[in-house]
Amino acid sequence: MTDRMYRIALASRPTGAPETANFSYEEAPMPSPGPGEVLVRVHYMSLDPYMRGRMDDAKSYAAPVPIGGTMEAGGVGEVIASNDPAFAPGDFAFGMFGWATHGVQPARMLRKIDPSAMPITTALGVLGMPGFTGWFGLMEHGKPKPGETLVVAAATGPVGSMVGQVARLAGLRTVGIAGGADKCRIATETFSFDACLDHRAFDTAADLRRALAAECPDGIDIYFENVGGKVLEAVLPLMNNFGRIPVCGMISWYNAGGLGAGASEPGLSAPALWRSILVKFLSVNGFIISNHFDRYPDFLSEVAPRVASGEIRYLEDVAEGLENAPAAFMAMLRGGNTGKQIVKLI
Amino acid sequence: MTDRMYRIALASRPTGAPETANFSYEEAPMPSPGPGEVLVRVHYMSLDPYMRGRMDDAKSYAAPVPIGGTMEAGGVGEVIASNDPAFAPGDFAFGMFGWATHGVQPARMLRKIDPSAMPITTALGVLGMPGFTGWFGLMEHGKPKPGETLVVAAATGPVGSMVGQVARLAGLRTVGIAGGADKCRIATETFSFDACLDHRAFDTAADLRRALAAECPDGIDIYFENVGGKVLEAVLPLMNNFGRIPVCGMISWYNAGGLGAGASEPGLSAPALWRSILVKFLSVNGFIISNHFDRYPDFLSEVAPRVASGEIRYLEDVAEGLENAPAAFMAMLRGGNTGKQIVKLI
Repeated sequence: MTDRMYRIALASRPTGAPETANFSYEEAPMPSPGPGEVLVRVHYMSLDPYMRGRMDDAKSYAAPVPIGGTMEAGGVGEVIASNDPAFAPGDFAFGMFGWATHGVQPARMLRKIDPSAMPITTALGVLGMPGFTGWFGLMEHGKPKPGETLVVAAATGPVGSMVGQVARLAGLRTVGIAGGADKCRIATETFSFDACLDHRAFDTAADLRRALAAECPDGIDIYFENVGGKVLEAVLPLMNNFGRIPVCGMISWYNAGGLGAGASEPGLSAPALWRSILVKFLSVNGFIISNHFDRYPDFLSEVAPRVASGEIRYLEDVAEGLENAPAAFMAMLRGGNTGKQIVKLI
Repeated sequence: MTDRMYRIALASRPTGAPETANFSYEEAPMPSPGPGEVLVRVHYMSLDPYMRGRMDDAKSYAAPVPIGGTMEAGGVGEVIASNDPAFAPGDFAFGMFGWATHGVQPARMLRKIDPSAMPITTALGVLGMPGFTGWFGLMEHGKPKPGETLVVAAATGPVGSMVGQVARLAGLRTVGIAGGADKCRIATETFSFDACLDHRAFDTAADLRRALAAECPDGIDIYFENVGGKVLEAVLPLMNNFGRIPVCGMISWYNAGGLGAGASEPGLSAPALWRSILVKFLSVNGFIISNHFDRYPDFLSEVAPRVASGEIRYLEDVAEGLENAPAAFMAMLRGGNTGKQIVKLI
């Protein structure tokens, strides 16, 4: 066993979109597990849009990554040393190991993964945090009812594809939004969306709104919000009375600096947004899945069998090597990936 | 019985704040009740901020008042002719008679009022639509818990004063916002707010936020939204995680024209608003009380005894004469009234 590990640290805070210089690839001594701790060699790590938020020092639901600190990420890998009876070498586990080849965590912070049941990568996507986010937000805040219409953007991503599939199985009309004709085809063919619109094909929110209106003849009852920006602006006028908007992200606005005055794209003002909530009696709920881990067993028991049977499908986009994680992350923020973005480390 | 009545019609749509020229005082023939209808002589009519919205032709939860149409309002008065067995001359009733001295309504659209139980004006304020709005929004969407902190603006108005009093009786710390030192004194002395801030004393949202922070040492759990603008901007950074924002109005933005691009006051952008909802897991619910009349009996049975006993107090501001209704309405939109604005017609 090597005595060195590798990690990617936050070298500097980005202004707008992250750049290569914001990351540094570093060698570090192999950590040793203390009492009750477990050392894991990470096979796959997850890249997710929320990590962009951790690079800023704005107040948020989680502390920012400090300059010089390891970038945050979930990962799945093999236990190579354990000081806790719950784990033995050779076991597989999911944990927050960061952008790193190895990590030490207290055993209670790890979740054991059965590699014979499903590919271990599913613990990062369809059966991990993103899939759980989609399922929870839809069921808890979206309150889907048969015959209603749902819209979700990033429709081929791990959150959007879960939302769309669960909604469709619940009897809703599902309309996805994605970047590019290929993703739209995947949305309808792989994820069974009733329709999917390529947001790149529309210059303005008004154009996108007209196209959405045609695909949503009965209006929109649930808009599952993960992007903000132009899509939000297009959707709002089409929301039905008593519509629901679960808000789990706003990726199109993540690079908008401090998100303060003037960060809005032209056309959507705070009063216009507030007025839509008022006059359509909307229910808007922000959430982050880490507050709701008590529901994870419910999610797994409902969704895992449907993934195993193929009723709920998933798509992964795998980059190779820790050193390529920053490029894969930056590409993901621009929509360059297709499906759940993962980095293979071994 | 005279054969003439008087009404105020919408002469033209305002741009920004309404002006005298937007209203016309008109004489009209006395209407006759048809089958199942009731003719009422209105003693008191209500003026409420929502009426500003009806003057625009923007899409909203209710159709706009047409040019030349009678301005909408609730009123309470005496039945002078009835073609329905449920009402007899001499009965008192509440109904949507508009800005008018008399009105005809189907009997099923009227609510009988017992003038011996409470002053009939209470049917317009503390026990009418505004009081019900405050109670319902707080209980249904605010979900108050003892020990929490609530903030509401227009604290001496009929909605804000109900919200503050019901919240305080439920064990919350209540902080009001009002326009002027006199109203702040009324908020704490009459309506038992723990504190009240005069928004006119603060030039910027940041100044108001600092003062609010001092009065809300444990943050804000419920912000009952009826004003928008500077108050919303001051409140958002102080909201606690899992906070609730029932939205029943945004009076400071009602005169902002189309409320589209650029209508926001500087400083609060749509992304900043959206981000607060996301990172603090806020629950934001727009509502209008007319969708919830099924809960009105619950409201009355809970609140009316407390009004009768003096535990819940109210304040009315009475203008005299229909011809003065436009001036009273315009003053109310500027915060010139103190307590529920009513017009005495007889």
